[in-house]
This record gives sequence, C-alpha cells and structure tokens, in this order.
Amino acid sequence: MLSWTDILGIVAGICTTVSVIPQIRKAWKTKKVDDVSPFMFGILMLGVFLWVIYGITQNDIPIITTNGASLALNSFMLYLMVRFRKKK
Amino acid sequence: MLSWTDILGIVAGICTTVSVIPQIRKAWKTKKVDDVSPFMFGILMLGVFLWVIYGITQNDIPIITTNGASLALNSFMLYLMVRFRKKK
Repeated sequence: MLSWTDILGIVAGICTTVSVIPQIRKAWKTKKVDDVSPFMFGILMLGVFLWVIYGITQNDIPIITTNGASLALNSFMLYLMVRFRKKK
Repeated sequence: MLSWTDILGIVAGICTTVSVIPQIRKAWKTKKVDDVSPFMFGILMLGVFLWVIYGITQNDIPIITTNGASLALNSFMLYLMVRFRKKK
C-alpha cells in the first residue's frame, strides 16, 4: 500500500519526468533544436542515471521509477538533438 | 557524517541541478529561446517544488538541497525565456 508521501514523490517524479515531453514535441514538430543546449541534456542524463543508482541504494520506488523513465525520455531527446542539429 | 549513499545522492543532484546552467548560458549569449519549450520549464519547476516537499517528508538532505537549488536556477531560466521570447 502506498503512503501519501510515496504518492507525493510519484507525482513530483511524474512532473519532472514528463517535463521533457513538450520539449520533444516541439523539436519533433519544428525540426529545430538550435537554441537548446546539448550539454544540458548530457549532464541531465548523467544525473538522472546516478539518481536511479541512489534510488536503488535507498530502496526508494518513486526515485527509481521516475528517474528510469526520465532516462528513456531524455535519451530520445538527445537523439533528436543529434538528428536535427544544424550542419556547421 | 555523510554516508557514501548521501554523497551519491548529492552528486546525482548536483548533475541534475547544474544541467540547466549550460542552457541558461546559451540563452544569455544568443538571446534566443525560440526552440526551447516554456512548458518544459513550467512543468519541471512544479515537479522540482514537489520534490522539495517530498524531501522534507523523508528528511532526505540530498533531495531537499539539490531540488531547492534547481528551483532557483529554473526560475532564472524561465525569466530569460519570458525576456527573450520572440514577439508574436
């Protein structure tokens, strides 16, 4: 049974996880990523990966699941950034 | 005294927190945010705010401090987005 703090953590995690979806949608539609920083997504993915490991050590389900999903979504965004990057 | 898992959480948090800095730097230098999704930062800030509350309920220092810093940095990025938004 989930406690209300578990639910709070899951809602928090859903927000931070899905936040990249509007960015993916925008990049997908416009095929433009010029103003988006690739370093942002690189560092973010490293961080999210470490959060998953941290969550495992704490046996903290909200941290593991939401950061795992974040990792997948951010990988896709990074792929779009490589794909739509303006040729120099 | 910090345990190694505390340190892991702090490093994870530092990565996800500082990830927005290259984006802020890019927006600041180019004065362009056209390809960046404002919804991304809006939802992200709501999520980060909820993570702070969650961290308080769990008495989890890495979660509280890193998400608190994230909230400040993302607020600044959101300000830049409003400031540099292309007039319609």
